[in-house]
Amino acid sequence: MDPLADRYAARTHGMKSSEIRALFSVVSRPEVVSLAGGMPAVTALPLDVVGSMIGELVSGMGAQTLQYGSGQGDPRLRERICDVMALEGILDASPSEVVVTVGSQQGLDLVTRVFVDPGDTILAEGPSYVGALGVFQAAQAHVRHVEMDDDGLIPEALEQALLECRARGDRVKFLYTVPNYHNPAGVTLSEERREAVMAIAEQYDLLVIEDNPYGLLGFEHEPMRALRARNDERVIYLGSFSKTFSPGLRVGWVLAPLAVREKLVLATEAQVLCPPSLTQYAVARYLDTQPWQQQIKVFTELYRERRDATLESLAALMPRGTTWSKPDGGFYVWLKLPEGLDAKLMQPRAVAAHVAYVPGIGFYADGSGREHMRLSYCYPEPDQIREGVRRLARVIEAELDLHSTFGSVDTGTFRAVTSTPRPSSRSVYPPPVIGPANGAEGGEPAI
Amino acid sequence: MDPLADRYAARTHGMKSSEIRALFSVVSRPEVVSLAGGMPAVTALPLDVVGSMIGELVSGMGAQTLQYGSGQGDPRLRERICDVMALEGILDASPSEVVVTVGSQQGLDLVTRVFVDPGDTILAEGPSYVGALGVFQAAQAHVRHVEMDDDGLIPEALEQALLECRARGDRVKFLYTVPNYHNPAGVTLSEERREAVMAIAEQYDLLVIEDNPYGLLGFEHEPMRALRARNDERVIYLGSFSKTFSPGLRVGWVLAPLAVREKLVLATEAQVLCPPSLTQYAVARYLDTQPWQQQIKVFTELYRERRDATLESLAALMPRGTTWSKPDGGFYVWLKLPEGLDAKLMQPRAVAAHVAYVPGIGFYADGSGREHMRLSYCYPEPDQIREGVRRLARVIEAELDLHSTFGSVDTGTFRAVTSTPRPSSRSVYPPPVIGPANGAEGGEPAI
Ligand SMILES: Cc1ncc(COP(=O)(O)O)c(C=O)c1O
Ligand SMILES: Cc1ncc(COP(=O)(O)O)c(C=O)c1O
Repeated sequence: MDPLADRYAARTHGMKSSEIRALFSVVSRPEVVSLAGGMPAVTALPLDVVGSMIGELVSGMGAQTLQYGSGQGDPRLRERICDVMALEGILDASPSEVVVTVGSQQGLDLVTRVFVDPGDTILAEGPSYVGALGVFQAAQAHVRHVEMDDDGLIPEALEQALLECRARGDRVKFLYTVPNYHNPAGVTLSEERREAVMAIAEQYDLLVIEDNPYGLLGFEHEPMRALRARNDERVIYLGSFSKTFSPGLRVGWVLAPLAVREKLVLATEAQVLCPPSLTQYAVARYLDTQPWQQQIKVFTELYRERRDATLESLAALMPRGTTWSKPDGGFYVWLKLPEGLDAKLMQPRAVAAHVAYVPGIGFYADGSGREHMRLSYCYPEPDQIREGVRRLARVIEAELDLHSTFGSVDTGTFRAVTSTPRPSSRSVYPPPVIGPANGAEGGEPAI
Repeated sequence: MDPLADRYAARTHGMKSSEIRALFSVVSRPEVVSLAGGMPAVTALPLDVVGSMIGELVSGMGAQTLQYGSGQGDPRLRERICDVMALEGILDASPSEVVVTVGSQQGLDLVTRVFVDPGDTILAEGPSYVGALGVFQAAQAHVRHVEMDDDGLIPEALEQALLECRARGDRVKFLYTVPNYHNPAGVTLSEERREAVMAIAEQYDLLVIEDNPYGLLGFEHEPMRALRARNDERVIYLGSFSKTFSPGLRVGWVLAPLAVREKLVLATEAQVLCPPSLTQYAVARYLDTQPWQQQIKVFTELYRERRDATLESLAALMPRGTTWSKPDGGFYVWLKLPEGLDAKLMQPRAVAAHVAYVPGIGFYADGSGREHMRLSYCYPEPDQIREGVRRLARVIEAELDLHSTFGSVDTGTFRAVTSTPRPSSRSVYPPPVIGPANGAEGGEPAI
């Protein structure tokens, strides 16, 4: 019994552990091939160079890098962030409109705090980034999903959703969208649709939150022009160095019109006072002195190889009736099981077969997505990926057999299967300090 | 005109810039002696040693330090945090009850998010830490101040406040208290009163948030026993490495009963996914390999000297009728002006005389404190402090003269005086990248 049970805030009632976190204590076992987590391949960085760069920042500039900084973030970093955004066609951004955040996750939380009252409606792709759904839930917002296809968000579906919300009197605060290499859907909003979405935004007086951590991680073509490059009044842009440099530094940003920017700064001051100085200086120095664009090429080559391994194995091994997206950038494939199968129910059997994915329902606020799963190819090596897909294909086939024999299948919940875990150092406290990066105790964040 | 003016969340309406931030663009001018900011003396750290330590963490353990970590924080760091708390008599804390946060500021925000609905009441000392008031305001909470004296919070005043709130039907969610070397009051809760406060908490079923960034920074005696050491069910403890190591790393923590801990982890995941890995590893490695307790001695010797310079100058120079607290640890002196003077109205004249402080009204949610100011001795050298106090004494004397001539005095607002600022590199954008640590553009955080 929790003696404080009667005094929590209303917003805590909907808070629940994400599908991803629940999974990690299990998938971190070394024998499991994890296609679950969205962790970047940071070891592809020149660690020695980055190490001495950061060491020198502390030795030589400790008075700044170890001290409090401004709530809005280091001015030098904000300048360099404008250079980064220029690669996606945002040419008019001023450093004064940028707020540095503790990862783009904090950016999303700040924007939501500034705009969303309990009961407000947020439009978001279906499926949507699970971390965003967590923020919206904590804000007690209602999420209305908008359908996507291979070209991203469907403008007609967006318009339809807006009309429905209007008719019902819902207060729609914004559209939350991930236009590039969507997490989890793996698709990218086409050029045409970008124009269409912005036209609808204009027509319906809609604010758009453009969440873009993967925009520079394309495999086939130059970065596409951001929504923010098309409209600087209706779009609030969220960026991150988590996928182009390092997520462990937790440096992201928001680009917003000045009036919004001012509110975001007040909100971040109340939340964290200021972002860490050291990590901000590290990113600024990295952008100033290292060949960061070439490093992004190194990353994308590596991810492209892993994407290829994934798509080739899927094509070779998946049973008929299974379909999946074909990402040309980013980290994720969105897979649809053959009719009648349920990714959530199948999960314990997949883990027993030593392969892990994230069930699709985690990416919907409304319980949809049971037939879907997200596969991440960013972290495992190509050979592991091939082995993982092989195991997954076998699990799906077995599932199909069961299904055709017994109809709908539920042979146990996830918890039931893991109730007799193999002896593992992870289940005792304290855990080993330095495990493999996908084995941190206490669960990974929900990316 | 802000085209989005009609769609902000209700919580933004009360958000306003703190007294401290408003001040910084002015006080960062080099000719001004600033007794305003609460910035620790980080250059007293062995910067070379810390620099190579952090550099090696990245070079040698980049796969962990540059990667996402768990939302709750690095397990090794959480173990070491328990060792730190043992110095204040908290001997039963388990690492599983610790949540690492982005400074203790984030800890306070998370606790508030987990407990406070709009309209709830929070009891807090009068005056209170300005950053806490910002959090409570963003949560749309009502703050009821409880009186303090030289021995800290007055138990009878606490009981009185609880009775009044009960009578009015206010939902009191917790008492927020800074028992050691209070910011801004400079006083410490006596041993007797600690017992009395906890007895009242027991009797009235009151939750206590113990915010303790300064507990190890005493000048005269061993650390006092924490409230949390006396009661592990009713006290949520907030700690920070900002004052004992480095604020630029933004590493703090919350120690809470397991049921609360679980909610705090969900809340922090929604807010930042996880705290920065690099800064957590840096603190853990520092605690593991460096003589951190001796370093705290170095800091306290330095702060003691500055405190002495402050108290001696005040005693020598302040006009009759001025009174102040005599801190035996921490960073702050709380000063009361002679009858009839107003620290806020006097501020422009103090800045014109090249000395800065923080007006007392910033530390109250209810507009009190006009006759008070906070003086921080943590950052300036003793000679600067003496010069600053000398200037301040002259300003107060001039104010007294005016006052006895004309009665209540208002010779202009702060803004009026700064409307023709001296040409300064700080007023043009972009600002210089590396200024003195108390000159960051965009305002300092509200500490
Ligand atoms: C779409 C999306 N937005 C935001 C984030 C959060 O990233 P950050 O590490 O910058 O907080 C992620 C991380 O996976 C993501 O996929
Ligand atoms: C009483 C009090 N609480 C919390 C904080 C915030 O500290 P941190 O840097 O750990 O966020 C401060 C900083 O000055 C403080 O004085």
